[in-house]
Amino acid sequence: MLQTIAWTGSAARLIDQTKLPTEVVYVDITDEKQMWDAIKRLVVRGAPAIGVAAAFGVYLGVRDFPEIDSKAFLTRVDEVCAYLATSRPTAVNLFWALDRMKAHARNMWGANPQRMPDTQVIPDIKDELLYEAKTMLAEDTAVCKAIGEHGMALIRQICGERKEYGVLTHCNAGSLCAVTYGTALAPIYYGAEQGVKFHVFADETRPLLQGARITAFELQASGIPVTVICDNMAATVMSQGKVCAVIVGTDRVAANGDVANKIGTLGVAILARHYDIPFFVAAPTSSIDPAIATGKQIPIEERDPREISHGLGRQTVADGTAIYNPAFDVTPAELVTALITEKGVLRPPYGEAIRKVLP
Amino acid sequence: MLQTIAWTGSAARLIDQTKLPTEVVYVDITDEKQMWDAIKRLVVRGAPAIGVAAAFGVYLGVRDFPEIDSKAFLTRVDEVCAYLATSRPTAVNLFWALDRMKAHARNMWGANPQRMPDTQVIPDIKDELLYEAKTMLAEDTAVCKAIGEHGMALIRQICGERKEYGVLTHCNAGSLCAVTYGTALAPIYYGAEQGVKFHVFADETRPLLQGARITAFELQASGIPVTVICDNMAATVMSQGKVCAVIVGTDRVAANGDVANKIGTLGVAILARHYDIPFFVAAPTSSIDPAIATGKQIPIEERDPREISHGLGRQTVADGTAIYNPAFDVTPAELVTALITEKGVLRPPYGEAIRKVLP
Repeated sequence: MLQTIAWTGSAARLIDQTKLPTEVVYVDITDEKQMWDAIKRLVVRGAPAIGVAAAFGVYLGVRDFPEIDSKAFLTRVDEVCAYLATSRPTAVNLFWALDRMKAHARNMWGANPQRMPDTQVIPDIKDELLYEAKTMLAEDTAVCKAIGEHGMALIRQICGERKEYGVLTHCNAGSLCAVTYGTALAPIYYGAEQGVKFHVFADETRPLLQGARITAFELQASGIPVTVICDNMAATVMSQGKVCAVIVGTDRVAANGDVANKIGTLGVAILARHYDIPFFVAAPTSSIDPAIATGKQIPIEERDPREISHGLGRQTVADGTAIYNPAFDVTPAELVTALITEKGVLRPPYGEAIRKVLP
Repeated sequence: MLQTIAWTGSAARLIDQTKLPTEVVYVDITDEKQMWDAIKRLVVRGAPAIGVAAAFGVYLGVRDFPEIDSKAFLTRVDEVCAYLATSRPTAVNLFWALDRMKAHARNMWGANPQRMPDTQVIPDIKDELLYEAKTMLAEDTAVCKAIGEHGMALIRQICGERKEYGVLTHCNAGSLCAVTYGTALAPIYYGAEQGVKFHVFADETRPLLQGARITAFELQASGIPVTVICDNMAATVMSQGKVCAVIVGTDRVAANGDVANKIGTLGVAILARHYDIPFFVAAPTSSIDPAIATGKQIPIEERDPREISHGLGRQTVADGTAIYNPAFDVTPAELVTALITEKGVLRPPYGEAIRKVLP
């Protein structure tokens, strides 16, 4: 299983995802500018991974700051966070991580900025910021692993005595979107560690092909059999009995269990229902938004039509033709067999199940 | 509406489909070698279009043959047909058209090859072969137009009072796969001629993108509003109420009404059923194969995985990763709301309806 982010002792080591799937290149990030660039250029992507990467970026940005002025140091922390925040302004996890790092630094000084501690404490604060980034890395790993454990138990119930568990997934919610394990692929990695044999069917996931480029790559690299299909082949694969469960990730879950995820997820859910195949959504509780009553309130971002017409190096749609490119769709809760969280498996009715599991 | 094949008086004029959708180039084919090349290179594609193009190829291949030896002329007809047959050895319509041209030439001589007519008849035979090719062109146009008429009446019943008829289609079964009109798009072209306002949603149709490259292009060129979507966006478009009917073409219909068509059709049919949208298949009676009892007997061709991994100018799947690339899928008859043939609309139970309409 690939490790998207690791601390080497002196640098944050990232897999350069812009080079996938044809090259596997690791880059050691040693300052905040390199981290900004890595997030901006999608060297690292996926909400959980971006958050953890940014946290290391904060530490790297203050590591070499002179330890002579407490106030200047605190200002530096804020500046580095503000700078990193501009790398990917739509990534919610990025802000969450930066806020957490800022709060951590401030807490060490106490609430009153007049009560600046001795400059001798600055090295400790630096250590603390590194420790906090490592904690976030460990927390993400633990959440994903717990999803893997709960999900694997569920899939075992469903796929039972089959010699090989055929699972279909859409887009990438694997180790490369988190620190490791991922969400949708966590049960597969966890199960594989226990000796369960899987065969994953990965939708290529137009327009940006995260399934073909990333999901297939990471499973292949981890020795898990995977077959890439075009999105429009999922029905055929299901009709052939090759799949006993579908598992996908999510960007956001509404309070009623409606699920926003990469465009195409809704179609897969409908096909799964038609073929009576369970449709599971791996959803860390951090992705559940109780402030959103139903999926209808989730705005659907429309992206650049050129992702469709010019996305892969060759123009495939004539100039001037209308193109619709929604980035996400919303799968209604009634099509979701279960939500797999790090705190356990949630079943319908989701409103109630979600209220119980959220703090 | 585009005319895929036309006779100029001295040449067969084709739209060069290899240049679409970025350039519209017409080529005048004046001999059989050029026609062989045009079929081979997919300058002309689509079963009906290939058949008609090949028929003109036969005429062009004998047009300038010396009119001095009846037997040599007949041999020449056979040679040209055998040669053209190698241009696309899997295209059933190609053989059908060549056989028809050969039979036409032979009929003029009578069944007994010993009874060769006078060489003076050769010019008449040449004229007859051109006439036969033109007849095939006219027949194809008439069949497609009749499908358009029947289909339009059906769609009008369904979409009723809507100001704009939203129709979703998959792959290309439009004017560019036939002489003109096409099959799935025929009702739309026919309706547009009567002043009906359409908005077509064209699935891009991975892996070869015939929807994006060809369907969207030909509708746009004919002034019919069209929006290209990725295959995995069809569910979203349907969920938004933008589509009142789905209409697709077919490669082959079994005796029970099961429909083989471009990969992805099955998924669209399931989504349409989920959203209670009628799913129509435009099927010239020539595509109905009464020798095939059900769709289970239709072999599914698997194509080169590189169409998926390297199809668009950039490698999108890592080397060594398994890829499944079925060219077609089979939609069971129970998901088909109606078959639209040139002889009228067939409704379930299809076994009976098909028996009535076939000779």
